[in-house]
Amino acid sequence: MSDVLQAMRDVVVANRILAREGVVDAYGHVTVRHPDNPERYLMSCSRAPELVTLDDIMEFTLEGEPVDDSGRVPYAERFIHGAIYEKRPDVNSVVHNHSHAVIPFGVTGVKLRPVIHVGASIGADIPVWDIRDRFGDTNLLVVDMEQGRDLADCLGPNRVALMRGHGCAVAGVSHQQSTMTSVYLQVAAELQAQAMRMGEVTYLSDAEIEHCSATFTSEISVNRAWQYLRHRAGVSDL
Amino acid sequence: MSDVLQAMRDVVVANRILAREGVVDAYGHVTVRHPDNPERYLMSCSRAPELVTLDDIMEFTLEGEPVDDSGRVPYAERFIHGAIYEKRPDVNSVVHNHSHAVIPFGVTGVKLRPVIHVGASIGADIPVWDIRDRFGDTNLLVVDMEQGRDLADCLGPNRVALMRGHGCAVAGVSHQQSTMTSVYLQVAAELQAQAMRMGEVTYLSDAEIEHCSATFTSEISVNRAWQYLRHRAGVSDL
Amino acid sequence: MSDVLQAMRDVVVANRILAREGVVDAYGHVTVRHPDNPERYLMSCSRAPELVTLDDIMEFTLEGEPVDDSGRVPYAERFIHGAIYEKRPDVNSVVHNHSHAVIPFGVTGVKLRPVIHVGASIGADIPVWDIRDRFGDTNLLVVDMEQGRDLADCLGPNRVALMRGHGCAVAGVSHQQSTMTSVYLQVAAELQAQAMRMGEVTYLSDAEIEHCSATFTSEISVNRAWQYLRHRAGVSDL
Amino acid sequence: MSDVLQAMRDVVVANRILAREGVVDAYGHVTVRHPDNPERYLMSCSRAPELVTLDDIMEFTLEGEPVDDSGRVPYAERFIHGAIYEKRPDVNSVVHNHSHAVIPFGVTGVKLRPVIHVGASIGADIPVWDIRDRFGDTNLLVVDMEQGRDLADCLGPNRVALMRGHGCAVAGVSHQQSTMTSVYLQVAAELQAQAMRMGEVTYLSDAEIEHCSATFTSEISVNRAWQYLRHRAGVSDL
Repeated sequence: MSDVLQAMRDVVVANRILAREGVVDAYGHVTVRHPDNPERYLMSCSRAPELVTLDDIMEFTLEGEPVDDSGRVPYAERFIHGAIYEKRPDVNSVVHNHSHAVIPFGVTGVKLRPVIHVGASIGADIPVWDIRDRFGDTNLLVVDMEQGRDLADCLGPNRVALMRGHGCAVAGVSHQQSTMTSVYLQVAAELQAQAMRMGEVTYLSDAEIEHCSATFTSEISVNRAWQYLRHRAGVSDL
Repeated sequence: MSDVLQAMRDVVVANRILAREGVVDAYGHVTVRHPDNPERYLMSCSRAPELVTLDDIMEFTLEGEPVDDSGRVPYAERFIHGAIYEKRPDVNSVVHNHSHAVIPFGVTGVKLRPVIHVGASIGADIPVWDIRDRFGDTNLLVVDMEQGRDLADCLGPNRVALMRGHGCAVAGVSHQQSTMTSVYLQVAAELQAQAMRMGEVTYLSDAEIEHCSATFTSEISVNRAWQYLRHRAGVSDL
Repeated sequence: MSDVLQAMRDVVVANRILAREGVVDAYGHVTVRHPDNPERYLMSCSRAPELVTLDDIMEFTLEGEPVDDSGRVPYAERFIHGAIYEKRPDVNSVVHNHSHAVIPFGVTGVKLRPVIHVGASIGADIPVWDIRDRFGDTNLLVVDMEQGRDLADCLGPNRVALMRGHGCAVAGVSHQQSTMTSVYLQVAAELQAQAMRMGEVTYLSDAEIEHCSATFTSEISVNRAWQYLRHRAGVSDL
Repeated sequence: MSDVLQAMRDVVVANRILAREGVVDAYGHVTVRHPDNPERYLMSCSRAPELVTLDDIMEFTLEGEPVDDSGRVPYAERFIHGAIYEKRPDVNSVVHNHSHAVIPFGVTGVKLRPVIHVGASIGADIPVWDIRDRFGDTNLLVVDMEQGRDLADCLGPNRVALMRGHGCAVAGVSHQQSTMTSVYLQVAAELQAQAMRMGEVTYLSDAEIEHCSATFTSEISVNRAWQYLRHRAGVSDL
């Protein structure tokens, strides 16, 4: 299989996994950087992630221009992805989602930080971006490169940025990493919220976050989890 | 397909989606205004929404008289729907439900207000109607036009009214809008409840609610979500 | 079909519905009074409710003696049922369950009371029975008639009694009523717990509980809900 | 069937049940002591529990050396199991999991203790092990016998030890007991967390825990629950 066809399949699989795990519903998207051209990325046309198929995958420039739309309608918020690829050459996949567990952290200013080793890949520092700070009252969507770049600046060198009243952006070296980080961001948020209601919380230390993140983004760990996530999403044969 | 047959199918689809999303259980209903006669509306006979089929759809006058019942038993609370259609010419579909996430707001007086953009279609102002205020101790059901009109007055120009100890009424320009607003009302209520337990909450501003509501009730957004909701409910071919 | 065969089928259907709705798991049971002999009741042999079939249904005296066990092992806690039938000629079906939502009320002394009309059939007064009060440190199970009668005394004229650290007993005039009351007891408990975390709660008034309970235990309401519950449990044809 | 083949099947069944009940996700494992050689144990190769089949089951020495790996990759944390078998001749099965409900207790120091009879098999005393106490900042995994033995020391004569920021270890006389204790540990943790939010909690007394634990680990109780858990996991024929 050509690299680009494989990458297109990866986008489909990541969409279906995110839908199965409840990270996305009718909205949310995942992209991968084009394997042959780092100035391009691959993304579904505007469709709920659970329904994405190979025919939906389009190619975009980093500025968000479709290379060949063939009549397909792109997502309004594709600029989140291009702006992060532009700023972060280390990133090869981006997820944008509205995971319910994550929203309360974005609207309360409570700092999200891993309480469990499998959540460590979200990192020790998770900034919160508020579109209102620079763009005033909007529909909260990231609809051009200026907004996308502002979000990417806020993300900085981290894996996750929360978006106030909206959701989050998650960056990874691969589609597996961005997808799994999104899944375990949800787990980490739920567990932190529960633990905080119970009493004083012991978080992972900075060094533990680094060690655990290395472990859970290692090839053996990713392979085991990916096989499981594909199975659950019914895409083991994709 | 004739407009009225299409409208009847819409009622079936909306019922099945509301059941799939956990907005309704054995109880709750959704109607659409008759496409050819604004003084009539279409509604299932008394049956759990998950089980509604085309044969169950009946036609009612706004006063709640069945046009031809063919032996079918109507819902006792149909007056919620007729009273809202009577007062609100802009409304073409109404949902009544007991969504669990919404109930606590109705019985505590805590103001429900969107904390997330996808919830903005519920609006900035959500009144709470208490049947006891005018009708004393009842079984809480809206069983005649006088009670229905009192609820419709409380609803006013808004999309959602909560009903103390009972549920809510949701009005939309279309069956998609009333259904999706019901689904995201549930999401908004859950997220607000979670956020409030965590700390001081930043709600969407009035202007953000207006902008977000326009976006999430736009044709492209509704189409994407509707395709997803139909798929999940197993009614893609209806 | 003979009355007794129908009653045996009712026991199977009620078991499967309670399992589907998460009211029971590996444990819990439901019985009906024998239709031809009020001094007997029908109950499955010791088996998880989800797996109960017609062959499992046994007949017991009110004292808990099997009429013909055919080698089948009875539930250790059958005395809950016989003791309630003995004391309450109006009761024709009893459910015993460990529904998770209900447990916290039994161990904290927080008074359970309906906040929603569909929960009204649980009644305005729900006593809590603590086996320790009369029987000291036990395995918490009701294993003889003396314990069963003590529980039945605590239940008094009510539909529901909580059992501290254990679960609850639910009495109804029919298997539909005991089953549906168990399902909506669970709903009522969840909603009250959520509402209490949010602020001061407005409960249904005593008169509202009476009116709502009459409505939701009426034939039309029960029929609609029962059709739905049978469908969800996959026993529409039983 | 030979004892060892039966034991291998038991490992498969226990894995699938733990996955079905949400005790494990992509991670977590269960082992049984070798029926013919107490110095050995049986464990799947590194694979998500939901996907484990008979071909994945490997034999290990208590030190964690594979007897014949046939190219299969072992779990990094197998030392949890060997160290417990070494210290506890009464234990014939061990589960390690990250059950979400349990994590908050490990990171807050809130004492976990049964509030419901079915949870009594977790015992009255549940210690919390923090790998940081002796091993400093790590990836939190138990990757050698020294760490495993330290955890086993913390476990002592108990059935359950929590692991701070990580999960728990559960020991049983059989695979049914370790699996069911893991399932009901999850239930006990959820119910205690809910009850604590509601008010002052009455826990089971020490004597009640002993009586209830004896009841719910008895053959008749285990058989009923095991039949149910196998059915739900779709492994009734294994």
